[in-house]
Amino acid sequence: MGFTDVDRLAINTIRILAADATFKSNSGHPGAPMGMAPVAHVLFNKILNFNPKNSSWINRDRFVLSNGHACMLQYALLHLYGYKLSMDDIKAFRSIDSHTPGHPESADTDGVEVTTGPLGQGIANAVGLAIAQHHAADVVKRFEAYGWHVETVADGDNDLESIEAAIKKCQAVKDKPSMIKLRTIIGFGSKQQGTHGVHGSPLKADDIKQLKEKFGFDPEQSFVVPQEVYDICHQRASHGAALEQEWNQLLENYSKHYSSEAADLKRRLTGELPEGWEKNLPTYSPSDDAVASRKLSEIVLQKDPRGYPELVGGSADLTGSNLTRWKEAVDFQAPATGLGDWSGRYIRYGELSLTSFSYAAGAIRLSALSQQRVIWVATHDSIGLGEDGPTHQPIETLAHFRALPNCMVWRPADGNETSAAYYVALTSKNTPSIIALSRQNLPQLENSTIGHAIKGGYVVHDAEKADITLVSTGSEVGICVDAVKYLKEKHNLTARVVSIPCFEVFDAQSDEYRLSVLPDGIPSLFGASGAYKDVYKKFEFTPEGISKRAVATVDFWKSVPNIRSPINRAFKQLI
Amino acid sequence: MGFTDVDRLAINTIRILAADATFKSNSGHPGAPMGMAPVAHVLFNKILNFNPKNSSWINRDRFVLSNGHACMLQYALLHLYGYKLSMDDIKAFRSIDSHTPGHPESADTDGVEVTTGPLGQGIANAVGLAIAQHHAADVVKRFEAYGWHVETVADGDNDLESIEAAIKKCQAVKDKPSMIKLRTIIGFGSKQQGTHGVHGSPLKADDIKQLKEKFGFDPEQSFVVPQEVYDICHQRASHGAALEQEWNQLLENYSKHYSSEAADLKRRLTGELPEGWEKNLPTYSPSDDAVASRKLSEIVLQKDPRGYPELVGGSADLTGSNLTRWKEAVDFQAPATGLGDWSGRYIRYGELSLTSFSYAAGAIRLSALSQQRVIWVATHDSIGLGEDGPTHQPIETLAHFRALPNCMVWRPADGNETSAAYYVALTSKNTPSIIALSRQNLPQLENSTIGHAIKGGYVVHDAEKADITLVSTGSEVGICVDAVKYLKEKHNLTARVVSIPCFEVFDAQSDEYRLSVLPDGIPSLFGASGAYKDVYKKFEFTPEGISKRAVATVDFWKSVPNIRSPINRAFKQLI
Repeated sequence: MGFTDVDRLAINTIRILAADATFKSNSGHPGAPMGMAPVAHVLFNKILNFNPKNSSWINRDRFVLSNGHACMLQYALLHLYGYKLSMDDIKAFRSIDSHTPGHPESADTDGVEVTTGPLGQGIANAVGLAIAQHHAADVVKRFEAYGWHVETVADGDNDLESIEAAIKKCQAVKDKPSMIKLRTIIGFGSKQQGTHGVHGSPLKADDIKQLKEKFGFDPEQSFVVPQEVYDICHQRASHGAALEQEWNQLLENYSKHYSSEAADLKRRLTGELPEGWEKNLPTYSPSDDAVASRKLSEIVLQKDPRGYPELVGGSADLTGSNLTRWKEAVDFQAPATGLGDWSGRYIRYGELSLTSFSYAAGAIRLSALSQQRVIWVATHDSIGLGEDGPTHQPIETLAHFRALPNCMVWRPADGNETSAAYYVALTSKNTPSIIALSRQNLPQLENSTIGHAIKGGYVVHDAEKADITLVSTGSEVGICVDAVKYLKEKHNLTARVVSIPCFEVFDAQSDEYRLSVLPDGIPSLFGASGAYKDVYKKFEFTPEGISKRAVATVDFWKSVPNIRSPINRAFKQLI
Repeated sequence: MGFTDVDRLAINTIRILAADATFKSNSGHPGAPMGMAPVAHVLFNKILNFNPKNSSWINRDRFVLSNGHACMLQYALLHLYGYKLSMDDIKAFRSIDSHTPGHPESADTDGVEVTTGPLGQGIANAVGLAIAQHHAADVVKRFEAYGWHVETVADGDNDLESIEAAIKKCQAVKDKPSMIKLRTIIGFGSKQQGTHGVHGSPLKADDIKQLKEKFGFDPEQSFVVPQEVYDICHQRASHGAALEQEWNQLLENYSKHYSSEAADLKRRLTGELPEGWEKNLPTYSPSDDAVASRKLSEIVLQKDPRGYPELVGGSADLTGSNLTRWKEAVDFQAPATGLGDWSGRYIRYGELSLTSFSYAAGAIRLSALSQQRVIWVATHDSIGLGEDGPTHQPIETLAHFRALPNCMVWRPADGNETSAAYYVALTSKNTPSIIALSRQNLPQLENSTIGHAIKGGYVVHDAEKADITLVSTGSEVGICVDAVKYLKEKHNLTARVVSIPCFEVFDAQSDEYRLSVLPDGIPSLFGASGAYKDVYKKFEFTPEGISKRAVATVDFWKSVPNIRSPINRAFKQLI
């Protein structure tokens, strides 16, 4: 099982490319690629099935580099095996607008499956990919060829010549993941090997010189790949291409014999939901009961599995509070447990509610950065949570995520807005969504429809010659509507009310929708513990309280006539 | 070692109070208090030393309820032992503005040491208290009586009658923490004991009835404490009061014999720094070198230990990058390790930088809510981080924490602003501060002084009859200053520049300081990987780029004359 000479040459080529690239960029992490080169070589050259000429082949094996700072390892491999990554790209390591950024970015580099870098997130993504494969292999009926492996390197032996055997043994294990613990020597080959000096800084010029001499490379040349190394890599790549061809043939046969199953598979691969799914979305009229928006969310999910059969979800130990499970849901579990099976789409994990939602910030951020259609259901929104008190009431949470690029933050005010939030979230293929939901009941609003709400913002209550527009989101919209009457009766002011369930979507609409008001601020306080109605009263989220602020706003605008300030992203954290 | 009858009565009293209070408030968690009552009774009645008449006695033992949802346990105990918590307070459990909120809030309730609720934070606070005691006991010289114990309940036996012996055995262990694992029966005594039905909802009326009958209480009465229970609790409280009196006598003797040591102890207890400490803060002039603000922060810390001998700090595995360790620092370590001692004030923990700073959001939030003088040093700020790329560049992070109440977010632009940030942070006894620091060098600004910067915002570059004011913070202020000349030469516009290192402090200043400009937005994009200068260029954080936006802003304001919009908290996320 030992390495051949050309294996060793390939491994040392990777090491030297990592040393050369970090030296040229004067930045980066040479140590990890140099230490991990043997295991990476075994994976790419002996184990994984992939076709560099079609990096999106659905049945490829997935490689996730969880310790993303070791990315020169991955770039060297992608280049050697013939992905769209030239030697010039390698030379441009860590320079602006290159295909070789400082940590792997799936959008920037052909063959990078997952954006990694924040430690811990890569392995979590790999678990997700493994779930996806296990689930899909069960759900795609009568097509045994469907299925792949996921290999993650969370930290990466030089002296272990049986890496390949170990990995193959793991792959033969069904129905549970395997972990291989390898001890590597960071910066293997460097004069400083095994020390933190090779972790985050390039090697010195004289160190690279001795490294190249030691490995039989010309010390005067940089970025050199021996032809025999390219040859064994391209040979492996050709093997992968042939496998894809075979697989495509199997898919074609499958399509002939099982046309409806194959059509379903193809639909899934496009990311489109079944035709007409949106007709299942519940609609409401003002005469319908007031309902907590977490419950409204449950009603949407209850339409599953007819509506959105690919939706895989779960809750963090609080299913009964988050209401994320539809009645017919099957848990994703090993059949032997008797608790579910691999076709299951409901996953049970650790605890998260909206305040503690910040614990998930790293994962949410990565879903935005890597453009994933993920729906983050965040329940127990706002001071409306009531009795659990300040530690459990989100205050700064929405401001945080509204400032996150490529992430929609929905705060539905009623049933139609909740359906709209799911509609937009499910049809936005490259953007994650946060849906923030209330524990308390919310009234169905008069002018609310799914059609209005999917624009992200709309007039809930209109008025001719309005003195003022009240702008609000989520559980406070209904209170603003109640304030309209109060303003008229007590202050003779005519008010209209705008609901903005999602700023990101609203910002993309025409100016017609971008009605404006300058809020005069919300007291910057933590919440309080009490019945939610008392909490609202304390912070004057009452018709009287809102009216008081509205009057002060009108007085202010009277002193500066003819101005209607555009609603600005900046106001989000005030609403 | 068995419980006496009155011990059992006290334990059952706690259980019934928890059942009564959650029933009356129709909200809360009865199960945990009912299960944990025995261990809590042992701790309060046999182990901990405290004086309910003076809950701030410095030498008291500390009790931290990490599973804060079990707070009715703590409230029952505080009431029984004579803290300022009446039976009316118990009856007001979870109602608005009560002293008995839904999770323990140190500011609301006499005798609650730590605000808990978000799971995992209480035990972390308890570790901090234990470090504080161990450190102080070493640093306060020649006063052996100084020192206390910290007991945390992270989850809480009924059948274990040797709880007391176990705890005492643990307390006898020196120089390392102990953990006692107890199995409790949630909702002990309820018909539903041992099930999740008693976790988060009150018991049913008939269940409470049988509970009271089972424990020999009158089922028709609620909120009853037998006199013999009060008696044994008050007896323990008197024991604690006597201990305090003895201790105060020891302190008096100490003060007589070691007056300077005692004076130092008393100063520490007031929270004041040594007189004149601020004179050590480094100052800079424009001719001084450009320096990275993480380095400027290290220069401030280097003034330790003369300046701020109580400052205990550390870094999460990245001391060499965060620059949080001063040269003479001693690590907080068991002396036997040879790596430090208990007088040490430098602590080494797990990884955090500004992007991954969100992982610490729960702890930061609690420091704000419980009004702690904590300084969160956040390095590698902004896209200025450069090559590590988008996964490591904070974008939404500052918006998040600027929206957090009672938390100062500092983004210093140069040396004097860095000194000012530390000055305000160290003198703000009830507010935590985040100091966001750059990796790249920043120039020393012309009009920057500590005196100006401690106001949170000031004019860095003034101009008569300015056409526009450029408002910025941190590493972008210097670029705005460079844009002044560019605006004049290319556009014939006169600009002044305002730096706002800390919005929270600036908001508290007079209107004179609240100069305004309406920024026209910053592209809402993730960062990019590259040399930081190239990254700034990509996003047009250049004199030309800023000028372009400034011109657009002037054009806008020309169409709406005579308006100077106040700088609003809402604009923070744009700057």
